[in-house]
Amino acid sequence: MNFRSDNTAAAAGEIMAALAAANDGRAPSYGEDALTKRVTQRFCELFETDVSVFLTATGTAANAISIAALTDPWGAVLCHREAHIETDECGAPEFFSNGAKLVLIGGPAAKIAPDGLREALTRNQRGVHSVLPQALSITNATERGGAYSPEDVAALSEIARGANLGVHMDGARFANAVAHLKCSPADLTHRAGVDVMSFGATKNGALGAEAVIVFNKARVGDVARLRKRSGHLLSKHRFVAAQMDAYLANGLWLTLAQRANRLAARIAEAAGDWLSHPCESNNVFIKPGPEILTALRAAGAEFYDWVGEGSGEARLVVSWDQKEDEVAKLVAQFAKLKH
Amino acid sequence: MNFRSDNTAAAAGEIMAALAAANDGRAPSYGEDALTKRVTQRFCELFETDVSVFLTATGTAANAISIAALTDPWGAVLCHREAHIETDECGAPEFFSNGAKLVLIGGPAAKIAPDGLREALTRNQRGVHSVLPQALSITNATERGGAYSPEDVAALSEIARGANLGVHMDGARFANAVAHLKCSPADLTHRAGVDVMSFGATKNGALGAEAVIVFNKARVGDVARLRKRSGHLLSKHRFVAAQMDAYLANGLWLTLAQRANRLAARIAEAAGDWLSHPCESNNVFIKPGPEILTALRAAGAEFYDWVGEGSGEARLVVSWDQKEDEVAKLVAQFAKLKH
Amino acid sequence: MNFRSDNTAAAAGEIMAALAAANDGRAPSYGEDALTKRVTQRFCELFETDVSVFLTATGTAANAISIAALTDPWGAVLCHREAHIETDECGAPEFFSNGAKLVLIGGPAAKIAPDGLREALTRNQRGVHSVLPQALSITNATERGGAYSPEDVAALSEIARGANLGVHMDGARFANAVAHLKCSPADLTHRAGVDVMSFGATKNGALGAEAVIVFNKARVGDVARLRKRSGHLLSKHRFVAAQMDAYLANGLWLTLAQRANRLAARIAEAAGDWLSHPCESNNVFIKPGPEILTALRAAGAEFYDWVGEGSGEARLVVSWDQKEDEVAKLVAQFAKLKH
Amino acid sequence: MNFRSDNTAAAAGEIMAALAAANDGRAPSYGEDALTKRVTQRFCELFETDVSVFLTATGTAANAISIAALTDPWGAVLCHREAHIETDECGAPEFFSNGAKLVLIGGPAAKIAPDGLREALTRNQRGVHSVLPQALSITNATERGGAYSPEDVAALSEIARGANLGVHMDGARFANAVAHLKCSPADLTHRAGVDVMSFGATKNGALGAEAVIVFNKARVGDVARLRKRSGHLLSKHRFVAAQMDAYLANGLWLTLAQRANRLAARIAEAAGDWLSHPCESNNVFIKPGPEILTALRAAGAEFYDWVGEGSGEARLVVSWDQKEDEVAKLVAQFAKLKH
Repeated sequence: MNFRSDNTAAAAGEIMAALAAANDGRAPSYGEDALTKRVTQRFCELFETDVSVFLTATGTAANAISIAALTDPWGAVLCHREAHIETDECGAPEFFSNGAKLVLIGGPAAKIAPDGLREALTRNQRGVHSVLPQALSITNATERGGAYSPEDVAALSEIARGANLGVHMDGARFANAVAHLKCSPADLTHRAGVDVMSFGATKNGALGAEAVIVFNKARVGDVARLRKRSGHLLSKHRFVAAQMDAYLANGLWLTLAQRANRLAARIAEAAGDWLSHPCESNNVFIKPGPEILTALRAAGAEFYDWVGEGSGEARLVVSWDQKEDEVAKLVAQFAKLKH
Repeated sequence: MNFRSDNTAAAAGEIMAALAAANDGRAPSYGEDALTKRVTQRFCELFETDVSVFLTATGTAANAISIAALTDPWGAVLCHREAHIETDECGAPEFFSNGAKLVLIGGPAAKIAPDGLREALTRNQRGVHSVLPQALSITNATERGGAYSPEDVAALSEIARGANLGVHMDGARFANAVAHLKCSPADLTHRAGVDVMSFGATKNGALGAEAVIVFNKARVGDVARLRKRSGHLLSKHRFVAAQMDAYLANGLWLTLAQRANRLAARIAEAAGDWLSHPCESNNVFIKPGPEILTALRAAGAEFYDWVGEGSGEARLVVSWDQKEDEVAKLVAQFAKLKH
Repeated sequence: MNFRSDNTAAAAGEIMAALAAANDGRAPSYGEDALTKRVTQRFCELFETDVSVFLTATGTAANAISIAALTDPWGAVLCHREAHIETDECGAPEFFSNGAKLVLIGGPAAKIAPDGLREALTRNQRGVHSVLPQALSITNATERGGAYSPEDVAALSEIARGANLGVHMDGARFANAVAHLKCSPADLTHRAGVDVMSFGATKNGALGAEAVIVFNKARVGDVARLRKRSGHLLSKHRFVAAQMDAYLANGLWLTLAQRANRLAARIAEAAGDWLSHPCESNNVFIKPGPEILTALRAAGAEFYDWVGEGSGEARLVVSWDQKEDEVAKLVAQFAKLKH
Repeated sequence: MNFRSDNTAAAAGEIMAALAAANDGRAPSYGEDALTKRVTQRFCELFETDVSVFLTATGTAANAISIAALTDPWGAVLCHREAHIETDECGAPEFFSNGAKLVLIGGPAAKIAPDGLREALTRNQRGVHSVLPQALSITNATERGGAYSPEDVAALSEIARGANLGVHMDGARFANAVAHLKCSPADLTHRAGVDVMSFGATKNGALGAEAVIVFNKARVGDVARLRKRSGHLLSKHRFVAAQMDAYLANGLWLTLAQRANRLAARIAEAAGDWLSHPCESNNVFIKPGPEILTALRAAGAEFYDWVGEGSGEARLVVSWDQKEDEVAKLVAQFAKLKH
């Protein structure tokens, strides 16, 4: 019963097969290959608009490049207090942006509410003495298993745009958000005001493949050089392209996310009043207290306390390759402990 | 009745005279002059220990250089939410440190309490995924007119040292803190665990003279190169040295601060229950509400709303050269409005 | 006849097989997996000493992290004028080191000679006004197909060490150097004074796998955080580890390089007096003039002018998977054109 | 006979008097004062166009801010191999620009020739793999005592503009260049294609006062925030403004430079065939060999070997306050040694 992280999952068979197929003789390097062109084409179709695509091997790279492309070094990036860019990237956004400041906003389910955003914008308004708010970064699905709807995103983007901020979406689990919301990728992003996003595949079935998707070229800086200069332009680029190509083909990205979400929903339903946040993706948060968590672990469940030891709260991540019987066993444990 | 800022004050006569005296023929540049040597000697005497001294023209430079000398780019600097380094330096600490993160702590009077510090240290403990707490920065006197006592500083330093953090003191108004506490500069700094400080003279009578004082050479990085590389090594160095020399001579620094504190205390006493923070330096904070503030302005008083328009709170800064009758007039207005 | 770059080569079958084998259920993320441990063990054996190993997906990352781990922002990195870190990484070393300066040295075959190194060390000696030489970076095999012998490396390291510089080796084509020199990896690196190296696998058969190898932990900074902060810690780390594991197993790394070198030597021999640098790896440089290059292209050969259009010089890179008949065809063309 | 550096000179009486006059009660801080406004007005008149003015206390700050305002972190700054920004600022341009690369060009008298600039532009043209040339920086007068004429500047600017580079002039000794060329400041700068300059006063009579002058607002970035973030916005700004105000009033800047140039010319004439570069400002370079230099020192002359001990070449800097009899004594020594 391993619910630690979707980073511990395997790679999907379709993606492994695509890698093998791509390994066919010579191919131009640094993204000049045919597979890379096809991936860009697929993203244009997926988002129903002309986009620029920059593949990387990690989500931290995709996030930090995106943010650096929206801010000056003296800029401020508004994000949720629990955002991955704040808590888990060792200061990568600060590094890539050459020292921009992350201004933190609270809110349940790791979601930013319009009022929270408005309040944060009033900070740092001392002219040249303050850093300059230049970007809003939201994570969808969030680090607490929540999902912003297209309307949620549009409401935040409108406020951001009014203050002349660019909008970034960290889509490390974008597929899970779309699977939950049943909306179109276009509606959830550029039509709702997103300028640039990190589109993740790694957690949801790839080996290591992420994309910076630029929707609004006028607002987003020199991503090509940001990527190269940070060492994230892969030389044998076809191999990251092959992963993303297979991920996008035949709706694989969505199929895998739907499966994970479905199993997560089953856990959430079983958790009942233990649930500490609504389950709107593949991450389930429960807060049954330390004793119950100890009992679950004794029964063989693996997961992280969230946040920190002794919190009495747990994060249960369902991966694309989670076994049905792992979920069934966990649900059975819930029932037993609740009894 | 100008209580806007001690940055609007003039320079003290003794300091102007010292400048004129220093302008005597040729002198070695870049700090090789005799006045600079004498300043270092004076600081060693003032702090009763061997210190390294690096003069600069601005407090932001002194702060940012100090912080950069304590942290790696992936470091975290723990400071109060209202610290000048967070709110008023346009991200200078981030710039000089190449992207370290400021981790914010609350607390009344812009003072950090031991519990607040302990709690902040528990954040960012996700190993390589987190930034690494490396420095504590405290301001004395604080941005809200408070003063840390030697015991306060020692308590925080002990916690910091236990977590392997260096300790920086922003002493832009250090003289006002010492004048209030009636302690020795040594007791308030290195004997209480401070590794490096910014020692301010500009607000309290100089034209533009600040010093980075290194107490703990083992913990503090290459300040000399940090200063040069950031353009803060003055070529005609004798002129900044002359200011600091006169400031330290004959206790001028303390005399000027004592005067400002005395006048501030008079305002604080008159403010009575309007006082929003204890007055422990030359800054007085009152919160009589927006109407009273409007009335005070109508009567000719100048000051900033703190923080932000409509807060109903005001910061009243008494400068070293504040006229007695300005204070008398303000106090009279207080009495009239309270009546 | 594609001799453009070893970056256009495919991945070796052994490495593809290892990837497939690694895709077996769950595995701990971020390098806590068993394969990563085995790779470290293999490197310790290969270099006959205890080393720290940090895998990345690109050589630019490995180089820039290594260099940043040897220098302060005000440091200088001495390297050859034609070094990849100078010419082809979009300023990555400057980015990762937060602004260190590359000080350039000339020399045939893109090799630094001891005198060139000594001369460069005399530059930048104006105390705090200069940047501070802190690192020497050499590429082995070089960007011009040359190889530093263990004695060459030791001679440079001794000079570097005498000036308190750390020593980095860019080993993007380390295997080709070892194959040529027939020496032990240990003799060519740490026994010759190298503190940290970039060990490349990508060009020589991997999909995307490089390693920062730390020999001298006392001299080399926090590579773990440099890697994470720059987005180069892969989450599904087993997949990069699997590549490197297979690359090191059974001497595959050396076998592939030997093959490429052998074919390159055949081309070099055929080139005769066209050869512009001795061929000591898998890269052959010829300078037969623009007309001959045009004729070669007309006959179907693909390669880059080096450096720049119209130079009359060409770089011919032989990849691990170069077909024998491609080489034979090229050699035949040479003979025809020389006739 | 102190010819070490104009940084060892005193401050002019007019400037000291202006400081004293500025010390008159309260004044708004951070550049909101009346003197600062007057300085901007004076610069607009001096350059016969509308300019933005940002005062700083050091020339390194003015240079590094200017350069950062013209380049991205992945930019390249083309400059002479002997430029102050390359040799004497401890990497400040790299720091302020967050890692841009200085691409070096040779040429006599520390002057860049059009061909040298054209050649340098052909380097770094590997697309995303190279840094991107974005700025040309020229020093006028140069570090070797030369002066670029308006025609010289225009020729370089035209090439720079053709390659989409911004143009910066380091005018630490701009007054000496103008005094030599007898041209208008406008003709030597914006009319010749300069976008931003560092206008120096410190060496030529101020205590510490320099200005970033922006001619071309469309090309030059956010200087205000670059200055604040680097700690170079002085709080008691009137005191730097007072210096610059007096420096510009009544042509003081030019008068002082004319005097220094006149004395330098006298030395140059006496030097005769020792002269190693034409003397076109207040710096005289002679190369009489080590023995003569030893003899000059024995006779009481102070100066730096240029560049480096044993070069047999010397830099003789004449300051605005150089005594006539110092020059006479030196000239007499020349005659004696030449005899």
